[in-house]
Amino acid sequence: MAVYTDITDEELAGFLAGYDLGAATAFKGIAEGVENSNFLLETEAGRFILTVYERRVRPEELPYFLGLMSWLADHDFPSARPVPDREGRTLNTLRGKPAAIAEFMHGLSVRRPTVAHCRAAGGGLARLHEAAADYPGRRVNDLGQPAWAPMFARLHDEAENLKPGLAAVIDRDLAHFEAHWPRDLPGGAIHADLFPDNVFFQGDAFAAAIDFYFACDGAYAYDLAIMLNAWCFEPDGSFNATAAAAMLAGYQAVRPLSAAERSALPILAHGAAMRFFLTRLNDWRATPAGALVKPKDPLEYERKLAVHREGLVL
Amino acid sequence: MAVYTDITDEELAGFLAGYDLGAATAFKGIAEGVENSNFLLETEAGRFILTVYERRVRPEELPYFLGLMSWLADHDFPSARPVPDREGRTLNTLRGKPAAIAEFMHGLSVRRPTVAHCRAAGGGLARLHEAAADYPGRRVNDLGQPAWAPMFARLHDEAENLKPGLAAVIDRDLAHFEAHWPRDLPGGAIHADLFPDNVFFQGDAFAAAIDFYFACDGAYAYDLAIMLNAWCFEPDGSFNATAAAAMLAGYQAVRPLSAAERSALPILAHGAAMRFFLTRLNDWRATPAGALVKPKDPLEYERKLAVHREGLVL
Repeated sequence: MAVYTDITDEELAGFLAGYDLGAATAFKGIAEGVENSNFLLETEAGRFILTVYERRVRPEELPYFLGLMSWLADHDFPSARPVPDREGRTLNTLRGKPAAIAEFMHGLSVRRPTVAHCRAAGGGLARLHEAAADYPGRRVNDLGQPAWAPMFARLHDEAENLKPGLAAVIDRDLAHFEAHWPRDLPGGAIHADLFPDNVFFQGDAFAAAIDFYFACDGAYAYDLAIMLNAWCFEPDGSFNATAAAAMLAGYQAVRPLSAAERSALPILAHGAAMRFFLTRLNDWRATPAGALVKPKDPLEYERKLAVHREGLVL
Repeated sequence: MAVYTDITDEELAGFLAGYDLGAATAFKGIAEGVENSNFLLETEAGRFILTVYERRVRPEELPYFLGLMSWLADHDFPSARPVPDREGRTLNTLRGKPAAIAEFMHGLSVRRPTVAHCRAAGGGLARLHEAAADYPGRRVNDLGQPAWAPMFARLHDEAENLKPGLAAVIDRDLAHFEAHWPRDLPGGAIHADLFPDNVFFQGDAFAAAIDFYFACDGAYAYDLAIMLNAWCFEPDGSFNATAAAAMLAGYQAVRPLSAAERSALPILAHGAAMRFFLTRLNDWRATPAGALVKPKDPLEYERKLAVHREGLVL
């Protein structure tokens, strides 16, 4: 939940004057997105989401993200289409911060995905990969495998505080990735953060993907590995192989995986768990006590790392 | 901003099964209402607000509030109509808490009301009073004048902490109210909390009143006095007599005030400032450091009290 920036009716009216959307008829801050402020915006022209970009998102990267969202919407993928202003710009400024208006997407995210949701979400990811295949934008994944060892070098103490002995175990993982990380898998633009709260369903059907602010160039199978971690673990920490099989089947019904991609999935999922463990550990450390937004518990991903060390059966 | 209760898709589906609204097609927590959790709920039947009642609202009082909202909607006043379930109940339970679905109301609240907004809001309040005139529900105002002295008896130290010498000044105010509070003014159901964030406009026109959870029996002119305090002070603490005159004119265009009501307005506004000063002082004291919801500053109303001691020219 997050609304960091407070927008007055006058500021909103001034902002909307640059668009061809008529006057606002409703405007409400919504509890969606941890990094940005999001508002339900209804105007005479329809319903939209207004996003004000806060910390973490770099303004110079927004054209890549907004461009990808437009591209996907143009290529038959259900992504919120950014709305251009009267001068054709999708990126503007509100209260001195970058801001954009995008279509309102229908659907509900699910808290505890069923096997059917996992199948549909896998299919949605494959559709995303195919729709984005020729997107001309480029963005290096600054949270990819080469970044992990330097990140962890600053987090040894936090890992030890979390669990004595953990730092050495993580260091062994990182050496393993450095030696064995697959580097020639098929790829292109990936979402890189397609957690359940970033997917909307209508019933069991995939209805939309949102929150493209970690999208980047990467291996398609790595994107799928991120989803296996995010969708196919039970609350008790066990891996749900039925859900994972459904997710892979859903993906492959749209885009079959190569033998190399399939055999790389266990190390990719192990590495994907490392990426989220490291950023959560970093956020955990950086968050002052009593902060408004509670950081996500790094231990959830520490447990997933432990499962991956045993080897996934996929 | 507040979403205290987290609702899963499964809980929502179970809740909606009791209603004749079809399946949910969108569901988002919204940052509206300080006391309750509110959600934008879109179903196959339309758009609604789902409210889960949290602290402060007493469940046994909800039938009065929901009944008043229904009554107003039935009597041509723009209030969100509570939606009955299949068994005709507007009040239900979600995650063990009282919950209700009401119509989605269009419009925007304004941060800094103009004179035109004050005129329209005054007219809206008079319409509310007239529409509610025959509402059969009864609720004593537990934050009315008789409650203030007992409340303040527990807050002496906090007042002194806020401003040395303040407790004696407040005690003199309270004695003045006890001796001079007008007790025979015309009244009925009043909103009792019609601050700018509880009013929606479309352009300059009054579009809706929301958040009836302080509504009670009371003098109509006291309701107007609450609004004079909430709408007609500048950020620098000065009273905007032009805005106040417009508000009174807007009110009287619908429901003329009697001579007794008009002459009572200064003491009613002084007392209304006391009511909000006392509850804010109490909330200020009761809120632990680092709490998620920052209490409103009691000093804003302490300054309004000082203005009222000089006497309002209305």
